[in-house]
Amino acid sequence: MNSTVTPPGVIEADAVIIGAGPVGLFQVFELGLLEIKAHVIDSLGAVGGQCVELYPDKPIYDIPAVPSCTGQELTDNLLKQIEPFEPTFHLGQEVTKVERRDDGRFDVETTLGTQFITKTIFIAAGVGSFQARTLKVDGIEVFEGSQLHYKVKDPAQFEGKNLVICGGGDSALDWALNFVGKAESVVLLHRREDFRAAPASVAKMKALCDDYEMQLIIGQATGYEASEDGKLNHLKVTGADGVTRRVPLDMLLVFFGLSPKLGPIAEWGLDIERRQLKVQNTEKFETNVPGIFAVGDINTYPGKKKLILSGFHEAALAAFGAAPYIFPDKKIHMQYTTTSPKLHKVLGVETPVFD
Amino acid sequence: MNSTVTPPGVIEADAVIIGAGPVGLFQVFELGLLEIKAHVIDSLGAVGGQCVELYPDKPIYDIPAVPSCTGQELTDNLLKQIEPFEPTFHLGQEVTKVERRDDGRFDVETTLGTQFITKTIFIAAGVGSFQARTLKVDGIEVFEGSQLHYKVKDPAQFEGKNLVICGGGDSALDWALNFVGKAESVVLLHRREDFRAAPASVAKMKALCDDYEMQLIIGQATGYEASEDGKLNHLKVTGADGVTRRVPLDMLLVFFGLSPKLGPIAEWGLDIERRQLKVQNTEKFETNVPGIFAVGDINTYPGKKKLILSGFHEAALAAFGAAPYIFPDKKIHMQYTTTSPKLHKVLGVETPVFD
Repeated sequence: MNSTVTPPGVIEADAVIIGAGPVGLFQVFELGLLEIKAHVIDSLGAVGGQCVELYPDKPIYDIPAVPSCTGQELTDNLLKQIEPFEPTFHLGQEVTKVERRDDGRFDVETTLGTQFITKTIFIAAGVGSFQARTLKVDGIEVFEGSQLHYKVKDPAQFEGKNLVICGGGDSALDWALNFVGKAESVVLLHRREDFRAAPASVAKMKALCDDYEMQLIIGQATGYEASEDGKLNHLKVTGADGVTRRVPLDMLLVFFGLSPKLGPIAEWGLDIERRQLKVQNTEKFETNVPGIFAVGDINTYPGKKKLILSGFHEAALAAFGAAPYIFPDKKIHMQYTTTSPKLHKVLGVETPVFD
Repeated sequence: MNSTVTPPGVIEADAVIIGAGPVGLFQVFELGLLEIKAHVIDSLGAVGGQCVELYPDKPIYDIPAVPSCTGQELTDNLLKQIEPFEPTFHLGQEVTKVERRDDGRFDVETTLGTQFITKTIFIAAGVGSFQARTLKVDGIEVFEGSQLHYKVKDPAQFEGKNLVICGGGDSALDWALNFVGKAESVVLLHRREDFRAAPASVAKMKALCDDYEMQLIIGQATGYEASEDGKLNHLKVTGADGVTRRVPLDMLLVFFGLSPKLGPIAEWGLDIERRQLKVQNTEKFETNVPGIFAVGDINTYPGKKKLILSGFHEAALAAFGAAPYIFPDKKIHMQYTTTSPKLHKVLGVETPVFD
């Protein structure tokens, strides 16, 4: 990977932004003003990050000069603002590898196999990537991918099997209903009588239970049993009555929702303090690794407040901090979007006539 | 002023903001979220600061999530955003005095005699206050207020007098035209043939000159003569031909436009570096005087960029930095406008139902 010829399929970039939330999107804008093009990667399938994932329709009141907007509106406005800079988005994939090359640039690789060689990296990953909450049963993680699943990639592999599906939200209910009649048996396991899922799904599930088409158990998984050849064959479930029962199964599906994780970021040699990336100073928001910047909720420094508007400010200063890596010989001047004909050109707007 | 009883007419305040530009206005918002009410003072007669004074109709492109807005629109949106916090504006007056009191608070006084006792001060004065550009003639400043004027407060005092009016913009032309027929004589002095004033005014002035109703001199004031009793009686004017002429006068009116000045701020004991206020750190944006904060274009720190969005971030952190002066016993928690019922209450909005 350190040869002077870029391998085919590898994207050569000036800037890779990890995270397509509001701050990652605004990072595109601030880099664009300095004529730096950016690639944006996000583990979610759509842009907007936490804002769109957690509160797409809820108003935000503290974006300066925007008295009220939803997470979706904020995202849409930012997308409109960065349009002139034509960023390339790589969604639904997580960055797994970041490694410094001998030439000072970085090799970056994602879970979908997208590869980059980039001069700078901007980590705008918020609280981290959203990953499935796992089942907390000692030792059960050895079955992940074989008999324990947190998502359904190929429904066919569950047909004709004895399934236990854990969870009380829409994913758990929808898959339970889906597999009734296709699987050998379906047991839905939820820790309490209340469900977060759509009431219609809950009603349908209860009707199927009444007809003995599937079974609902209220309780929690507290252990498991495996056969001599290492197959998971029973889940131990403790009910509200304190009694533990053995539930036979072939496959265990768990839908406990998504929770943010720092994930692979923790392995790139960056200074981390309480799951936040420490930046060297508030001048450039650069991490301890030269060329890697951290902006928005994921970074920390004295006085840090996790405000979107702080991330915007950090993105602006990080862009100036990064420019020398991309244009080592160019002197970067601060210009104003209101008055600079050069910035009007990069923004694709008319220069107004001043008197 | 240090008695425990507040003298009548003196306003007791938690926070005084100097400057009603975008950053000063957003400072109201960030203080408001922390339930701190603010008084805002500006030397201009309207809110909006430099943005409205210099480019009310020109688009700004780098306010995050606002792809394009004029200085006036930015100001209007900020005014709407801070409405729930009911700030009190004191416009058209400059702060002349800031003095620490024995009780730790500050005495603040303006050119219009408005007096405050305040716990904290936020200087959001941008490039300073806009003041008239002065005539650069050695020693002539002694006549300011008697025979040398940079604005017309009472037109009657110029009637029947021999006037020299300097400048080539609208103010100079408008006043010259106004005084023809009222003053004994009117001489307009401008350094070149081009005028920045409205073409119609220029045409009218030239017609009056052709009719000997007034006189236009192209040249620059380079000196003056005074009588034995100390009255300014002649202006020395050097023309483009290099010849210096003596122009008799009773009153000298100068309209060279407005220029930003740090002004009295320089005398409050604050650390100043190249006409900027140094802040102690980027955690609170507090100056060397505890309780006085500097935000926006007027402050400086390593990496400072004079961006409106940086001022917004600074205002947020300064508000948190100031809260202990106002509520010494209260623990301040960061809350989010999207999710905090308490912030919804101070903003006067409904709390949405979360699932």
